[in-house]
Amino acid sequence: MNIPLILETDPVTYIIGTEALEKSENKINKHKRIIVITDDNVEKFCLNIFRQKLPSVNIDSVIVIKSGEGNKNIQQLTFIWNELTRLSADRDDLIINLGGGVVTDIGGMAAATFKRGLQFINFPTTLLGMVDASIGGKTGIDFEGFKNQVGLFVNPECVIIDPIFLDTLEDLQWQSGFAEVLKYCMIFDKDLWGKLEGCNYKNVDDWNSVIIKSARDKIDIVRSDTLEKGIRKNLNFGHTIGHALETYYLHSYSPVTHGMAIAAGMICEAWMSAQIFNIECSIIKRIIHMIDNNFQRFDLLPEDIPVIMELMQQDKKVRDNKHNFSLLKKLGKAVHEVEVEDHLIIQSLEFYINRESCK
Amino acid sequence: MNIPLILETDPVTYIIGTEALEKSENKINKHKRIIVITDDNVEKFCLNIFRQKLPSVNIDSVIVIKSGEGNKNIQQLTFIWNELTRLSADRDDLIINLGGGVVTDIGGMAAATFKRGLQFINFPTTLLGMVDASIGGKTGIDFEGFKNQVGLFVNPECVIIDPIFLDTLEDLQWQSGFAEVLKYCMIFDKDLWGKLEGCNYKNVDDWNSVIIKSARDKIDIVRSDTLEKGIRKNLNFGHTIGHALETYYLHSYSPVTHGMAIAAGMICEAWMSAQIFNIECSIIKRIIHMIDNNFQRFDLLPEDIPVIMELMQQDKKVRDNKHNFSLLKKLGKAVHEVEVEDHLIIQSLEFYINRESCK
Repeated sequence: MNIPLILETDPVTYIIGTEALEKSENKINKHKRIIVITDDNVEKFCLNIFRQKLPSVNIDSVIVIKSGEGNKNIQQLTFIWNELTRLSADRDDLIINLGGGVVTDIGGMAAATFKRGLQFINFPTTLLGMVDASIGGKTGIDFEGFKNQVGLFVNPECVIIDPIFLDTLEDLQWQSGFAEVLKYCMIFDKDLWGKLEGCNYKNVDDWNSVIIKSARDKIDIVRSDTLEKGIRKNLNFGHTIGHALETYYLHSYSPVTHGMAIAAGMICEAWMSAQIFNIECSIIKRIIHMIDNNFQRFDLLPEDIPVIMELMQQDKKVRDNKHNFSLLKKLGKAVHEVEVEDHLIIQSLEFYINRESCK
Repeated sequence: MNIPLILETDPVTYIIGTEALEKSENKINKHKRIIVITDDNVEKFCLNIFRQKLPSVNIDSVIVIKSGEGNKNIQQLTFIWNELTRLSADRDDLIINLGGGVVTDIGGMAAATFKRGLQFINFPTTLLGMVDASIGGKTGIDFEGFKNQVGLFVNPECVIIDPIFLDTLEDLQWQSGFAEVLKYCMIFDKDLWGKLEGCNYKNVDDWNSVIIKSARDKIDIVRSDTLEKGIRKNLNFGHTIGHALETYYLHSYSPVTHGMAIAAGMICEAWMSAQIFNIECSIIKRIIHMIDNNFQRFDLLPEDIPVIMELMQQDKKVRDNKHNFSLLKKLGKAVHEVEVEDHLIIQSLEFYINRESCK
């Protein structure tokens, strides 16, 4: 029998694992009126599962936004505000964000800013959502081509993580979430690394326990540093270069997933870590092998590098025009606010492009 | 010699009274880069005063929005986000909101949501801003014709209230702020009422002390109830009907000030208070006389009432479709969450229209 993990932290309750949905019933039903925010894709594949598992929940209205990172924008945020206005939503109503990172990011921001704050519960439906995006109170939208340029820190009342939705996922979505799982392994979960090394995301055998462990890793970090003043910054490993790459490809002919971009970012930043902290070549090779075993590399060209460097300027982690990276000190331990010179960043991108094994 | 009042509360520092500007210098200069948000009107009349009084402050950039409540909208918010993007503003920068309620509301929201939160300091330049809008962390914009429909609670680092800017005000702006001063008198400052009864706003003789006292009243309330769960709701006296009237006239041929609308709202709600709490007719007459002595009544018609009732439905204070008012229990004491039936609200508007003295 499966019993989900229930963490009653202040201010968020987390329910994680098989049958989490069923256990969320009383958290939902204490609210007067339930409004679901979801996207067209999730509506098709997950809304029925939600209804079936929670027959007592009376959904008043469903607000459906367009799926895809390209739609995490001001137009869709305004659309949600409009819908909430039309529904005369008020501060006693509950917003349920049912979806991946786009839905929990934009739905969380919409809820938190409508009439200065409605309560909301996140029900992530993607692996990335379950192990990362739905946890930690970061909400927001992309703006003027920059990732999460506008948003706020605000906690949901609960995060309900039920792997039941994973069966609806396509390959690329599994892969995307797996990048964050690998990140947790590298930055502070040597134990999980031990379980996963050599694995391809297509043949992980116990997702339930991987999800519980990964989500728990993230919860522990964000609880100890809600506003990202210190240790939470470690979660940015792979993300400084990763976000620039994601932005670079956001409106390209073949949009990339968050995971693909972060996988590439982790290769570059693992290499930078090795240069700065003298990590053994054999360790870096294992890390890069694990990533390459799960993610195909981008066909990046040397002439793309200046644009990527430019995009990094808008990163929220840039201070005083200096790039502060979160890097690995060793496998299983990260450090934050490592100042890195531009030339080393450029070299790391060249290292990625040239598919060198280590140097 | 004038010494401003300095209140170092957690998390906001308030500096209030003559020469407050000069005392704010070190609060500003500890930040790396200073970006001012203001409106076209304030830029003309107040920015130079700011520069003259704070010669050591190095303003990097000035973002100028359009003045007027009609411009407290998503377009201007987006304009600010665009400007902050263009300036590559980051989390170490300081936003200075220099202006009235529109600037502190919209500028506060822009700062709090750009890159998930830049720090900001409010420098109110209007009487309404000084005694009300700049204090208490309410930020936001009007949306789809509804007042403050979108926004969030977020505290500035400091609020610097210097009456020096008042010399730049037009009559109507003095009058608008005076409505909130009268509200504080009625809901919990009998002492201030005693000082002001019989006054017209044009002949108040010690504004510095009135501002310090009013601002202090508001600070005390918002500190004890940041998120408006209880006693802070008392501040809504006059605002339930007042906001509906303000919205009603927002895009009319002659837009009204916030104060005019709240003055009308206070007449209606004082009358409702009298019906519910059996306040003596003579007290209500004194209240109404004080308001009428400072504000001209709207030419409201009986046929306007249904639209105003409809607008009240979108009020943030509506729960379960019931109207919860903050009313007077007596002169100098308010209570919140008083449920009022529609017919009594309608009667109060008729009372206002018919200019009855009391009943």
